[in-house]
Amino acid sequence: MTVVLDAAEAWLPRRMAAVEQRLAALVDGHGRGLGDEAGATLAAGGKRLRPMLVLLCAGPGAGEGAVRAATAVELVHMATLVHDDVLDAAPLRRGRPTVVARAGRAAATAVGDLLFSRAFAELAASNSAAEHRVRLLAAASVGLAEGELAQRRDAFRLEISAERYLERCRLKTARLFECACLIGAEPEPGGGEREALATYGAQIGLAFQLLDDVLDVAGPAERTGKARGADLLDGTVTLPLILARERDPSLAGFDLRALDPAAAEAVCDRIAATGVLEQVRADARDRVERAKQALDSTSLDEQRRVLLTLAADGVVERYA
Amino acid sequence: MTVVLDAAEAWLPRRMAAVEQRLAALVDGHGRGLGDEAGATLAAGGKRLRPMLVLLCAGPGAGEGAVRAATAVELVHMATLVHDDVLDAAPLRRGRPTVVARAGRAAATAVGDLLFSRAFAELAASNSAAEHRVRLLAAASVGLAEGELAQRRDAFRLEISAERYLERCRLKTARLFECACLIGAEPEPGGGEREALATYGAQIGLAFQLLDDVLDVAGPAERTGKARGADLLDGTVTLPLILARERDPSLAGFDLRALDPAAAEAVCDRIAATGVLEQVRADARDRVERAKQALDSTSLDEQRRVLLTLAADGVVERYA
Repeated sequence: MTVVLDAAEAWLPRRMAAVEQRLAALVDGHGRGLGDEAGATLAAGGKRLRPMLVLLCAGPGAGEGAVRAATAVELVHMATLVHDDVLDAAPLRRGRPTVVARAGRAAATAVGDLLFSRAFAELAASNSAAEHRVRLLAAASVGLAEGELAQRRDAFRLEISAERYLERCRLKTARLFECACLIGAEPEPGGGEREALATYGAQIGLAFQLLDDVLDVAGPAERTGKARGADLLDGTVTLPLILARERDPSLAGFDLRALDPAAAEAVCDRIAATGVLEQVRADARDRVERAKQALDSTSLDEQRRVLLTLAADGVVERYA
Repeated sequence: MTVVLDAAEAWLPRRMAAVEQRLAALVDGHGRGLGDEAGATLAAGGKRLRPMLVLLCAGPGAGEGAVRAATAVELVHMATLVHDDVLDAAPLRRGRPTVVARAGRAAATAVGDLLFSRAFAELAASNSAAEHRVRLLAAASVGLAEGELAQRRDAFRLEISAERYLERCRLKTARLFECACLIGAEPEPGGGEREALATYGAQIGLAFQLLDDVLDVAGPAERTGKARGADLLDGTVTLPLILARERDPSLAGFDLRALDPAAAEAVCDRIAATGVLEQVRADARDRVERAKQALDSTSLDEQRRVLLTLAADGVVERYA
């Protein structure tokens, strides 16, 4: 396509470079999430035919919006390539290791999802209500994918901290709850109101995840639909285990990869015996209280406040 | 959450029902793509906690936008569940077979992508330029996922028709090229202009795919980076084989699943020997001509027309 670039050298190469810059900034901006796993693949380039078409159809007079649209189209294309490589278990693309080859199936699936979501975020540049919503949902979707990446990176690592676990839950679960509250509130809430609604959503999201993680240890299986210890078998270290390791030295050092289903159930019993499950449940209830308190600093009408309070209680009751 | 529904029975159950309706319409609206593979899973429901939060924060006075936002948030949640089930190879969710269990990894990955894209389409309801772009990109992304689904459904079926193959290419490849052209053109082109640009994009997209499929048969491997016959080994039946089967009876009935890499190369040789590769290349060049002709019925300025003509030629030259 050099001939096209040459024929429009007064403006097209500059615009294409701007697209590359946005793609590169995106890789940098997502830290380890994209930088490590996808950086090389994204940097490897490709023909960039689709973004070039966007810019050509937009013409030399088009503004920043055309560059964003071009970036978005390329991101969708990249997302499908990353997912295709997962399905094909492809080792190389454009002569470089694929994301799935570098980081595994789970991470590559998440990277694809992240690229999809970022594509839509590119398109929402102004402040109309709908674009505000697109931005919120895209940001939450990126968070989900980043949380998934973090979880797979932490897999089988017994020594991860409670803070690290909570940060992962914030991304993987709480972000979408937060988004649900903010995307619902109209007109777009400002400053303190926004923060209070976000706190409400995030805290019930975290409570939800904490109770879910307790359930994986406590069972019973007929209730959850899966055997106890499914997280352990997955290599997912959750708060009950993190806290139990401080109380029971026998949990301090064992190989998560060596567990079979029976051994995983036995670890669950040892976690439960330390009494940490009640501590985690209390933490979850605490968060539900904080969520409800946050509602007091909103200007929501009485009805909405009552209903959101009931909804917060519902999260805990589900597990009572 | 019944207590919340009861407490707001004057409006909330109706809104939640509207969200269910939109989710159901979406399943129906995508025919076999979602209906067969994901219908049961989507219909199986779940707590619908996230959409409820959207509606609660929006309050009783909110309009259609809140229902759309609630639907969008649930779609993102569903997309992540479908992808999680792929990674976990989970047989059941909510007591029903998962998408991956019913349709396989590839289809389930595509269904997840489709749900992501549909989520963003839900949010773009008005006619602002940015929302127009979100709609275009979401529709193209949905097309990509549907094309992927169609391809996996057609896998290993020697008897698929050329029409079916082209329809698949339209979804899988041409849609994003078409989107690239329309998303670039501003202000939003009307009627004939829009159609001409869409034709341009779609035809060069199809030409691109046809030439790619020729390359998989013709090689050489050092040029494409993969062995000849990779499509055959994948079970992907492309136009060269479809046409060759009409000319060489030995290609009419053989088992694609039984091919090893050496046998796949031998099939490539037999396809090439029928002379269909030149026919497919001619078809691709024809489409590039049609793309260029379509530019004549646009009101694009001379510069853009010249550049787009060069870009169209570039698609063919890449393979020359």
